[in-house]
Amino acid sequence: MTNPQPPIPNPQSAYATAGVNIDAGNRAVTLMKDAVKSTYTPAVLSEVGSFGGLFSAAALKGMSDPVLVGTTDGVGTKVALAASAGRYRGIDRYRGIGHDIVNHCINDILVQGARPLFFLDYIASSRLDPEMVAEIVTGMAEACRAAGCALLGGETAEMPGVYHDGHFDVAGTLIGVVNRPDLLPRVARPGDKLLGLASSGPHTNGYSLIRRLFDGVPLDHIYPELGFPLADVLLAPHRSYLTLLDGRRKMGDGEEPVPSLLSSVVALAHLTGGGFLENLPRVLPEGCGVRIARNSWPVPPLFPLLQRLSNISDLEMYRVFNMGIGMVAIVRPEHLAEVQAGIPEETWVIGEVVEGKGVTLVES
Amino acid sequence: MTNPQPPIPNPQSAYATAGVNIDAGNRAVTLMKDAVKSTYTPAVLSEVGSFGGLFSAAALKGMSDPVLVGTTDGVGTKVALAASAGRYRGIDRYRGIGHDIVNHCINDILVQGARPLFFLDYIASSRLDPEMVAEIVTGMAEACRAAGCALLGGETAEMPGVYHDGHFDVAGTLIGVVNRPDLLPRVARPGDKLLGLASSGPHTNGYSLIRRLFDGVPLDHIYPELGFPLADVLLAPHRSYLTLLDGRRKMGDGEEPVPSLLSSVVALAHLTGGGFLENLPRVLPEGCGVRIARNSWPVPPLFPLLQRLSNISDLEMYRVFNMGIGMVAIVRPEHLAEVQAGIPEETWVIGEVVEGKGVTLVES
Repeated sequence: MTNPQPPIPNPQSAYATAGVNIDAGNRAVTLMKDAVKSTYTPAVLSEVGSFGGLFSAAALKGMSDPVLVGTTDGVGTKVALAASAGRYRGIDRYRGIGHDIVNHCINDILVQGARPLFFLDYIASSRLDPEMVAEIVTGMAEACRAAGCALLGGETAEMPGVYHDGHFDVAGTLIGVVNRPDLLPRVARPGDKLLGLASSGPHTNGYSLIRRLFDGVPLDHIYPELGFPLADVLLAPHRSYLTLLDGRRKMGDGEEPVPSLLSSVVALAHLTGGGFLENLPRVLPEGCGVRIARNSWPVPPLFPLLQRLSNISDLEMYRVFNMGIGMVAIVRPEHLAEVQAGIPEETWVIGEVVEGKGVTLVES
Repeated sequence: MTNPQPPIPNPQSAYATAGVNIDAGNRAVTLMKDAVKSTYTPAVLSEVGSFGGLFSAAALKGMSDPVLVGTTDGVGTKVALAASAGRYRGIDRYRGIGHDIVNHCINDILVQGARPLFFLDYIASSRLDPEMVAEIVTGMAEACRAAGCALLGGETAEMPGVYHDGHFDVAGTLIGVVNRPDLLPRVARPGDKLLGLASSGPHTNGYSLIRRLFDGVPLDHIYPELGFPLADVLLAPHRSYLTLLDGRRKMGDGEEPVPSLLSSVVALAHLTGGGFLENLPRVLPEGCGVRIARNSWPVPPLFPLLQRLSNISDLEMYRVFNMGIGMVAIVRPEHLAEVQAGIPEETWVIGEVVEGKGVTLVES
């Protein structure tokens, strides 16, 4: 996309015949340029397609002890599902993948108390399809814009010998900032409450298993319990929790900004790979575990379906999948009402911090 | 590698059978941990394998107008060559790929006058080979350490449905900093001299063509004019020009630091994709072109061999390949002697800035 090297302009060159379609590269850049530019905040000093992106760090000088937070992630094998869906349902199936990668990264740094500054992407494929790349990048730009984050640069690569025909991979790097005194997690203690925020689907985890389970099932099949075509349910984009928890970012046109809840939160756990069982203990101090009341929130029908098809154990479900909860906020009991009231959608008290270790699932 | 999510510990889980080898992930992290940690500067506040990497930006507060520079790049199809070589010549064939990606990024931000702060990597493959991943990351760590840059985090992904068997891809993101008054390029003018710095091979460009040209040739074949096995010549790592031009970074044990030459340079051009023809005009103002004297430096024997095998034109060679020059410094005539003396290896005056536009190749 905003490849730091301009594409080679002569499509008839010997180099173009070696597998790199220069025309396609040029066309992709043209298609995505406006979307990328729409994310530019005043801190962005460089142009689309220039060298490395330039981002003014002058604002950091106003923080007492600024800390940069960097995370790199991939979408995982959800991209293979998007590739299958895109082939028969149209190019817009790819846009959600852009939301997936940006929002995954935003949530990953949010659990450290950080807010996004800028994002850089990497898209590689067997063959560069300009419309596909533009859709993915437009999705990234939409997610970036919603978070006040600049899409500062990126790279597209066409590698026919490396990727299976028609397949592609998407990765991204997000750089954010947090003032050191505001770093999360703070120290949880027994009695703190676990507040669950709804996920928008399996997000970006468990897709190797999901693809195996639905192998051979048409992606437009409608399971009665789902009520929507399989592709729609499985490709629902990973949502961001930034604006819900940190209202200093605008909520969208016409909505009132809400104050940041991060200062009232002890810790946040982003339920990605490893689900409840791996991600909650990471934010707890020694000597603390959590007790989760399994029936304290409505589990979306996809997850029971996945369990029925896979025959994996109850416990394993909570390790692989988010079960309908994408983010858990750990909150002191005295702040619970304030935090819950500050989040502009339904949330559930799904458990609490206890003495001990690990995650215990109980019936509520 | 330093995956922000800890691997799922139970290799017998249903999830592991869906194509993600958890044992391999754990083993890769163990193998690479020391290498990654060896790059940590005092600014790194996080541990290997934690959430997003934390990097103190306190030092930026001392700059009058700090600008962050971000670049994302991939190694390109050189990875496919490394995969082929690695299969029969051993795992150490992968280490250079780590140098490739880090040094490519370092050079890309150096042309803006920026020095590296931290790097994050992405490695994806059909199947996670812990030794292979550890070799690549060890290579990245070596290159980072040489540049005083922290290897702050990264992600490994195993995606059998996306990548061809035995193939992998490597991308990386480098974040650097420059004080705004020191941003490059400055404005070149006619009469400025072009100083060429030697490349270490084709670096990371032209490999789609290179792989096609040597298709079927054993990688241990020794062409008489090369004198070394093909794999060694083609997989020579992309070198970094940081320590040559900005001696504030240490040169290595026992060597004296040299002063930074960046303040005496008008512009730098990193000769990557697009070679001389695309990369030099990018750093020139309107109304200026360059004249390059073709015989003013020794062209390494690989490039004539590539031209003989491909039959591509002279001009095209200078568009696809670096022809033995990996970095060009544009220098005022009065600073030429100082800059040339300050670079601790042989350099060549390969041309000059002229009125006009584009790149003109002349016989010297």
